[in-house]
Amino acid sequence: MKTPDKNSISRYFQSLQDSISTKLQQLDGKSLFKEEIWERKEGGGGRSRTILDGLIFEKGGVNFSEVSGPLPDKLKQSFQVDQDDFYATGISLVLHPQNPHVPIVHMNLRYFEVGEQHRWFGGGIDLTPHYVVDQDARAFHAKLKEVCNRHHPRFYPDFKKWADNYFYIGHRNETRGIGGIFFDQLKDSPETSLDAIYLFVKDIGDAFTKTYIPLVEKNNFLPFTPEEKDWQLHRRSRYVEFNLVYDAGTRFGLETNGRIESILMSLPPLASWRPDRLPISGSREEYTLSMLKKGLDWS
Amino acid sequence: MKTPDKNSISRYFQSLQDSISTKLQQLDGKSLFKEEIWERKEGGGGRSRTILDGLIFEKGGVNFSEVSGPLPDKLKQSFQVDQDDFYATGISLVLHPQNPHVPIVHMNLRYFEVGEQHRWFGGGIDLTPHYVVDQDARAFHAKLKEVCNRHHPRFYPDFKKWADNYFYIGHRNETRGIGGIFFDQLKDSPETSLDAIYLFVKDIGDAFTKTYIPLVEKNNFLPFTPEEKDWQLHRRSRYVEFNLVYDAGTRFGLETNGRIESILMSLPPLASWRPDRLPISGSREEYTLSMLKKGLDWS
Repeated sequence: MKTPDKNSISRYFQSLQDSISTKLQQLDGKSLFKEEIWERKEGGGGRSRTILDGLIFEKGGVNFSEVSGPLPDKLKQSFQVDQDDFYATGISLVLHPQNPHVPIVHMNLRYFEVGEQHRWFGGGIDLTPHYVVDQDARAFHAKLKEVCNRHHPRFYPDFKKWADNYFYIGHRNETRGIGGIFFDQLKDSPETSLDAIYLFVKDIGDAFTKTYIPLVEKNNFLPFTPEEKDWQLHRRSRYVEFNLVYDAGTRFGLETNGRIESILMSLPPLASWRPDRLPISGSREEYTLSMLKKGLDWS
Repeated sequence: MKTPDKNSISRYFQSLQDSISTKLQQLDGKSLFKEEIWERKEGGGGRSRTILDGLIFEKGGVNFSEVSGPLPDKLKQSFQVDQDDFYATGISLVLHPQNPHVPIVHMNLRYFEVGEQHRWFGGGIDLTPHYVVDQDARAFHAKLKEVCNRHHPRFYPDFKKWADNYFYIGHRNETRGIGGIFFDQLKDSPETSLDAIYLFVKDIGDAFTKTYIPLVEKNNFLPFTPEEKDWQLHRRSRYVEFNLVYDAGTRFGLETNGRIESILMSLPPLASWRPDRLPISGSREEYTLSMLKKGLDWS
């Protein structure tokens, strides 16, 4: 049997969904995740979990899926393979907090197989504060760097740069948030075996709650004004723009007849587009915009 | 001199912007349009007008532009031309009303030149009610049909069908609203000269206020509940999805470094994505969803 085995990877993602959603639910203390099991006509399905109107989380989703079937021609080209069938399993989560001082977080970890030879992992985790707080951005990156460094010295610098380039809103010339790490098509190589990559992916998954929950606990009890809430709705509109215009996973889902509510669970419960949301000079809002750029060293 | 002349077309669009924004401002009775003049580095510029927080209009834009310069390679392919320079002038408007019983409206009229030989008009006007009211949908289409029929018997049926296919949200399998008309690359032909097409375009432009304002006057004084306002924010999210995922004009603008605030003026002041917005059986919300499909005869 080839290692790692797709069934054990899929079971890991499913158990990770369990442990993360349990912890987030305990943290929230009010709302419960609502689960929906879905099947895909062409093969496989998923288990979506959504939380709404919590004390901490205004909206969030922690989704698991395991799908397979014929590979659409468009994707054969983009993956540069000519095999007909694919298998994919993964976990994807986005959390939109109530309090504008608590950042939005996103994580996705996925495993892909096309035919016998093509097997890879992809994923990423990134933070989108409505208000950039240097200390929090550094703590977030430090945790990611620590996990990466346990596996390969190039992982953090390479994947941090990849995230800067990926989570980028071209038409605004701004990054989505303060970044994190992003990687794709990590395959078996002389330097890193697929087994070693799997250990890395698991290590990232297991570190999620330790990376994000401290930021929630630190910021959730800060009071906020209606103007700060408005700023949050404004910043969320940029999140929508990124996800609908650029995000490869979202566009992949929309083009391959994925389950719409699971694909678009990343979109915020409320967002606003108003041309008059211009931050005043010297404000925390202005500072935030100045920090939404590539190449900042948060580690 | 070739007719119609680009300068006179552009002057017409500019005067149409004046007359429409004046009438809408009078109708609103509270907010005034704020004007911004902008220039494009590569050539040309525009005059954007935005209204916010009105009695009737929560957000709206009526934009004029006249731009020229080198044609991006991507567009050479899509237009199937090999000339290097283009000229484009047009008017574009979107209105998001406060009252969920008043529909969203969109109109765009544009003229394009590439090199000496390639000259065409494009445009469209479509209505997106948050609540479909048959009588209003029929009145809207009847006006458009009347204008179209003054010019060519094929215009209304062809352009209505084109709108059904264009204003379509594939991943939701629903139309954006109740449609209208859409046309593109209308060129000089034995059947319709470019002069004749220009007369048609002007006739559509001049008919705008007569087509839309009666629907505002009829519905704006209807009371609405917080639940109906929530439904409006929910339906607006579909408007965002259409504009960011499918709309050719928006994507054209984002890819060619257009002026972002003018391109995205179509996005609503407030929108919500919540998985729990499911209409109850037999409700007006459910009826609305059932009417968001292609091929309905509203004339």
